[in-house]
Amino acid sequence: MNNPIALTCPISIQRYPHVLLAHGGGGTLMHQLIDQLIAPAFGNPLLNVQQDAATLPWPSSNPSSNPSSNPTSLPSPRLAFTTDSYVVHPLFFPGGDIGTLAVNGTVNDLAMVGARPLYLSVGLIVEEGLPMETLWRVVQSMQQAAAIANVHIVTGDTKVVDRGKGDGLFINTAGIGVMEYPQAIAPQQVQPGDVVLVNGDLGRHGIAIMAVRSGLEFETTIESDCAPLADAVLEMLAAGVEIHGLRDLTRGGLASALNEIAAAAHVEIAIAEVCIPVQEEVRGACEILGLDPLYIANEGRFVACIPAKDAERAIAILRAHSSSTGSEPCIIGEVKAAAQGIVTMTSRIGAQRMVDMLSGEQLPRIC
Amino acid sequence: MNNPIALTCPISIQRYPHVLLAHGGGGTLMHQLIDQLIAPAFGNPLLNVQQDAATLPWPSSNPSSNPSSNPTSLPSPRLAFTTDSYVVHPLFFPGGDIGTLAVNGTVNDLAMVGARPLYLSVGLIVEEGLPMETLWRVVQSMQQAAAIANVHIVTGDTKVVDRGKGDGLFINTAGIGVMEYPQAIAPQQVQPGDVVLVNGDLGRHGIAIMAVRSGLEFETTIESDCAPLADAVLEMLAAGVEIHGLRDLTRGGLASALNEIAAAAHVEIAIAEVCIPVQEEVRGACEILGLDPLYIANEGRFVACIPAKDAERAIAILRAHSSSTGSEPCIIGEVKAAAQGIVTMTSRIGAQRMVDMLSGEQLPRIC
Repeated sequence: MNNPIALTCPISIQRYPHVLLAHGGGGTLMHQLIDQLIAPAFGNPLLNVQQDAATLPWPSSNPSSNPSSNPTSLPSPRLAFTTDSYVVHPLFFPGGDIGTLAVNGTVNDLAMVGARPLYLSVGLIVEEGLPMETLWRVVQSMQQAAAIANVHIVTGDTKVVDRGKGDGLFINTAGIGVMEYPQAIAPQQVQPGDVVLVNGDLGRHGIAIMAVRSGLEFETTIESDCAPLADAVLEMLAAGVEIHGLRDLTRGGLASALNEIAAAAHVEIAIAEVCIPVQEEVRGACEILGLDPLYIANEGRFVACIPAKDAERAIAILRAHSSSTGSEPCIIGEVKAAAQGIVTMTSRIGAQRMVDMLSGEQLPRIC
Repeated sequence: MNNPIALTCPISIQRYPHVLLAHGGGGTLMHQLIDQLIAPAFGNPLLNVQQDAATLPWPSSNPSSNPSSNPTSLPSPRLAFTTDSYVVHPLFFPGGDIGTLAVNGTVNDLAMVGARPLYLSVGLIVEEGLPMETLWRVVQSMQQAAAIANVHIVTGDTKVVDRGKGDGLFINTAGIGVMEYPQAIAPQQVQPGDVVLVNGDLGRHGIAIMAVRSGLEFETTIESDCAPLADAVLEMLAAGVEIHGLRDLTRGGLASALNEIAAAAHVEIAIAEVCIPVQEEVRGACEILGLDPLYIANEGRFVACIPAKDAERAIAILRAHSSSTGSEPCIIGEVKAAAQGIVTMTSRIGAQRMVDMLSGEQLPRIC
């Protein structure tokens, strides 16, 4: 266990001697950290850093029997497995808290590979001195969110760190889901001709948190869009919608998610600014705060790339689910052939520009 | 999602207005927090706070088929699921680091219910400013430990928190294992007549860390016992050893683990001090530091309660595994009938005393 470290650190120590906040921001620096430092170390055929969750084989009951020689014994369905830590600050915000986020965020990562979420684990890292009542409220939120998302919290762990060595409360959840549909959802499958749709308006989660942090007040409170997404995705799959690419729009927002898909599929994703749904008050807050809604984290929104033939059905299903999220699904663009993965946007006045991945950190600790 | 909180906090706010370090220490206060605040909120039939891991059903391939009407379709084997966060300070210590701990700790929680560990998730919470080289070394350690324990790291997440809002690095791992043996391992099954054995010497992990913290030096460096335990447990199960109760000896040490088993099984566990293996240097360090080896955390040790008929076979199997851990397995006591769960110890001079659960916090942030 004490083998000498053979390799040198693959990230330039001269350039990045220390980890920066931006290394956790969902943008280019985070991708560099994962692609260069973490993924090569953990590298194995099952680790897939391009997906929100890993999809894994589950052993059949009788490992000694050869399924091909015994056609009546079906293999067990594959499982999906994912994890996220939640370090949002502040712990409570309009529309949710760190607990609802920790449940829905992990449920949604499972949903993004087409899995039905079944089980969650909860790891609490509490800073000494956290009001007991705060812990209690968060734990209750988690249970409420789990009940709504129809998952069971089945195992957990609680650690306490000294005062000043944490920030109130961090939560990790890991989730297990079952792949009920053989159809794989992976960004590599996205192809020219696919339409690009989102399931609702963008930017509310990030702005809800920034408003609390900066003391901004609006006529009506902007609430986080935090919500579970699995039912909507599973219903699309049940209806036979061919989902080629699917990403929830968390850290890095829509722009980063589209860039990830475009890069994996080697396509151009062309979106129209006028089609992107952003509430008036969110747009106003973005202007005041100097933020771009394309890069803001959401916690109940996804982008899907699907064949044009399935678009109408998909929109109908998502509309039926939008009553609970208060916003309309819509088509925001299309996929085109390209020599390399790029994202372009036609602006309101008709100009076309590249939409890059977030390079550093727009809003730290938003989830 | 914003339902009013109906109940009041079940832990007395007068007595414990804030979370204390001791609430994470593995002793009475931690059990109170879990039993009174966390378990009732998350309460569901699958949540089992008396075990190191949850054991859960896994859907069969064809959920619509009724297994009883189709005897050729076996149900999928059950899965085990567990999580732990690691907040050890310092990050590196003789015999391991936070990375080896994060892999072995979770592997061992799966092993304690008799599961074969398959998959791990990794959630990193990095404090801004952590040397990049440190992160790299820890990630490498995790991969080395995973290879030795024969598990795959398949999914992960990286968050960065502001300087001063973390402590270098916290790691959460969650683990999935498969239950290959129908035999359930649960403390409720422990019964009078069982022998109590440990797989090696106690106290090295805690003392290795305390020595670093306090600058203590010994003639030979005391190394953590941190090691994966799944192979030893699975080999006992394969050999038909009936394991009634099994606990790894982490936070709270041997004393807390025995108290948990005794309480669940309503038995007396009687141990003999003279039989408890503690290295001379560890014993010496305990005296200097005012610590009791019974309460010190280990990271490669377990206690097992098994029928006397299986003891010899179990010891032989554990001895074969002890070459890698440098210490001999041994029988330390027996299980007796009692009106309520208690743990007693016969001292070196023949006196008998109660061994209580750790009440607060002996060594904070040992794992």
